[in-house]
Amino acid sequence: MKSKYDLPNQIISALKNTFGSDPLALHEPSFEGNELLYLKECIDSTFVSSSGKFIDKFELELANYTGAKYAIAVVNGTAALQISLLLAGVKAGEEVLIPALTFVATANAVLYCNAIPHFLAIEEDTLGIDPDALRIYLKKISVLRSNECVNKLTGRRIGAIVLMHTFGHPSKIEDLSSIAKNFNLTLIEDAAESIGSRYNGQHTGTFGLCGALSFNGNKTITTGGGGAILTNDLEVAKRAKHLITTAKIPHRWEFRHDMIGYNYRMPNLNAALGCAQLEQLDKKLEAKRNLYIKYNKIFDNFKGVRLFTEPKNCKSNYWLQTLLLEDEFVTERDDILENLNSMGIMVRPAWNLLNELEPFTMFPHMELSKTKSIQAKIINLPSSPSLTFDKSNHA
Amino acid sequence: MKSKYDLPNQIISALKNTFGSDPLALHEPSFEGNELLYLKECIDSTFVSSSGKFIDKFELELANYTGAKYAIAVVNGTAALQISLLLAGVKAGEEVLIPALTFVATANAVLYCNAIPHFLAIEEDTLGIDPDALRIYLKKISVLRSNECVNKLTGRRIGAIVLMHTFGHPSKIEDLSSIAKNFNLTLIEDAAESIGSRYNGQHTGTFGLCGALSFNGNKTITTGGGGAILTNDLEVAKRAKHLITTAKIPHRWEFRHDMIGYNYRMPNLNAALGCAQLEQLDKKLEAKRNLYIKYNKIFDNFKGVRLFTEPKNCKSNYWLQTLLLEDEFVTERDDILENLNSMGIMVRPAWNLLNELEPFTMFPHMELSKTKSIQAKIINLPSSPSLTFDKSNHA
Repeated sequence: MKSKYDLPNQIISALKNTFGSDPLALHEPSFEGNELLYLKECIDSTFVSSSGKFIDKFELELANYTGAKYAIAVVNGTAALQISLLLAGVKAGEEVLIPALTFVATANAVLYCNAIPHFLAIEEDTLGIDPDALRIYLKKISVLRSNECVNKLTGRRIGAIVLMHTFGHPSKIEDLSSIAKNFNLTLIEDAAESIGSRYNGQHTGTFGLCGALSFNGNKTITTGGGGAILTNDLEVAKRAKHLITTAKIPHRWEFRHDMIGYNYRMPNLNAALGCAQLEQLDKKLEAKRNLYIKYNKIFDNFKGVRLFTEPKNCKSNYWLQTLLLEDEFVTERDDILENLNSMGIMVRPAWNLLNELEPFTMFPHMELSKTKSIQAKIINLPSSPSLTFDKSNHA
Repeated sequence: MKSKYDLPNQIISALKNTFGSDPLALHEPSFEGNELLYLKECIDSTFVSSSGKFIDKFELELANYTGAKYAIAVVNGTAALQISLLLAGVKAGEEVLIPALTFVATANAVLYCNAIPHFLAIEEDTLGIDPDALRIYLKKISVLRSNECVNKLTGRRIGAIVLMHTFGHPSKIEDLSSIAKNFNLTLIEDAAESIGSRYNGQHTGTFGLCGALSFNGNKTITTGGGGAILTNDLEVAKRAKHLITTAKIPHRWEFRHDMIGYNYRMPNLNAALGCAQLEQLDKKLEAKRNLYIKYNKIFDNFKGVRLFTEPKNCKSNYWLQTLLLEDEFVTERDDILENLNSMGIMVRPAWNLLNELEPFTMFPHMELSKTKSIQAKIINLPSSPSLTFDKSNHA
């Protein structure tokens, strides 16, 4: 059943006019620098695994790039988030505030700590946690006991709040930091999607105690699989390294572990890829910003949809370009997804709200009707930086 | 303080006579095949991450090589073991039997399931779980209730037993399988160290419900970081795949997850390395067997030590070559470790018994005095396959 206006075909025509008729991936990696050279160095040196110069280099350059004092490379973004929560002191049975709209890994990381995800409303300005609604909610449901934030309804301590910078766009970090401070919550940033994104000039992932980055294949830069923990706290950085190396006490030969640790180090092979990708990050960010400008030309004055623009005072990496359907066109979403994907134009909706997924229905959440209506409007567009690369520069 | 006989220097002289004066690593990887070619294919195709042809190829070839019906590539051996335990139905609060002498990951994987490691004695024949002692122990401490093995002392269900094939040598799999059957315990194999090792001709890791392999950099073949789950059960293989891909229900665009899953897939980049390494596995195994023969010449009739030989009916990969100190020379162990490592000859003791490490002291264990005396005798020798490669074949 098509509406008279036929939004799906309007979008298809507009995209084909701009990008031609080849299939468009949602987000493809591209390798145009020293990737192969660095991989060869790994092989030649035989250092491909849990130690090697590319791990050290990648960590140093990530710290330099983001302005974090320390960066610790790990096996993926989920692991980065789990370790961040442990470093925040989140204990079994405690609650952790996370947005209802996020990739499932945010909630899984909480559950790996045997803690309880508590889902928060988001706002349309940033697609991140709504600070105004949160302030009112916490005043209502929480109480400070012995300087700890306790959920009055469940009696459980609320240990931390995780901001997630949706599709790369920074949340309202300043407001949310201030709420975290007022309610004595440790701030953690799920910056899996937001490498290169800045809030008031400061890189996302560097505001909280820890920030978690991801370098999965669909991210702005990739290490195959990988992630990193950012922190400005030396002790936290040391504990992070200890936790991800099976909590082994360094010794030339003895195997002594002083806590339950993890095998979460990023292999040197993957870090080699990361070093080469990091060298191209600024170029990719520029290409992604150009893509935003291109989409803006397409969708400016386009009936029924609006292109999401980076929030005020923010510089976004525009990881995934985002259309928001106007209210009267929300019913068209599934037709758009079906038709565009069938034409080889990869688009996708936002994640389902986590509180509505079977494994998470028993966990606490705010009133989420506004969040649900925002979620229903979202369509992510093809966002590969290669879509606007100058072809003459291609390898 | 040196003994009159001076075992450390006797060993140093013997090793230098055979291998020369260059430093000797404990176990170095070597890359003499298609590693770089396959890595280049990854980069050229842009498939470096969670899907790609090398993952499928690696899984298929691992299954072919081991004779397992299915192999599922994962991010490391610890993850392989954790998922294996979940697939075995191990639940929070249940006990899992594991050897007291193993790498810490075996116990950590149990704890990630919120289950309780219960430490078993090992025997000198195989350095694996002692079946005779285990049978007596289980008769004493366990009872079958509603067809479940219950620890009478703790009241907890014992859900599974994990065999670990120490330094690559197969445990007494037949006896231990029969005990598992009698006591209704699911058998899982920690085959992290034993790729290429066979018991009565059958590959280790294929006897239990699942077997966990590791391809860390110190293993016989490496993927940088990586592991795999082996199983002969189609349903188990499907559930494994589901669990390691965040329990996402396959759909072209929708994000629906029906259980708490994990981000444990092996990236295509690492699988590419694995494919090239697997092609060289037989050559590496031959080199490692030749190294055993070389060591056997050195240590045959050597006073104070005995070289560990693969158990009866087994073909071992000889992952780590192992010296056992005779009782009266056990006090020399630390001098040997100190002196050889100082000379650049990397040797190491066995892991500390896990029940003696701080994070594990509260968990149940068998009487372990014999295990402790075996542990104290063990010294692992430099074991790289490259030590006996025909140099003319080198790349």
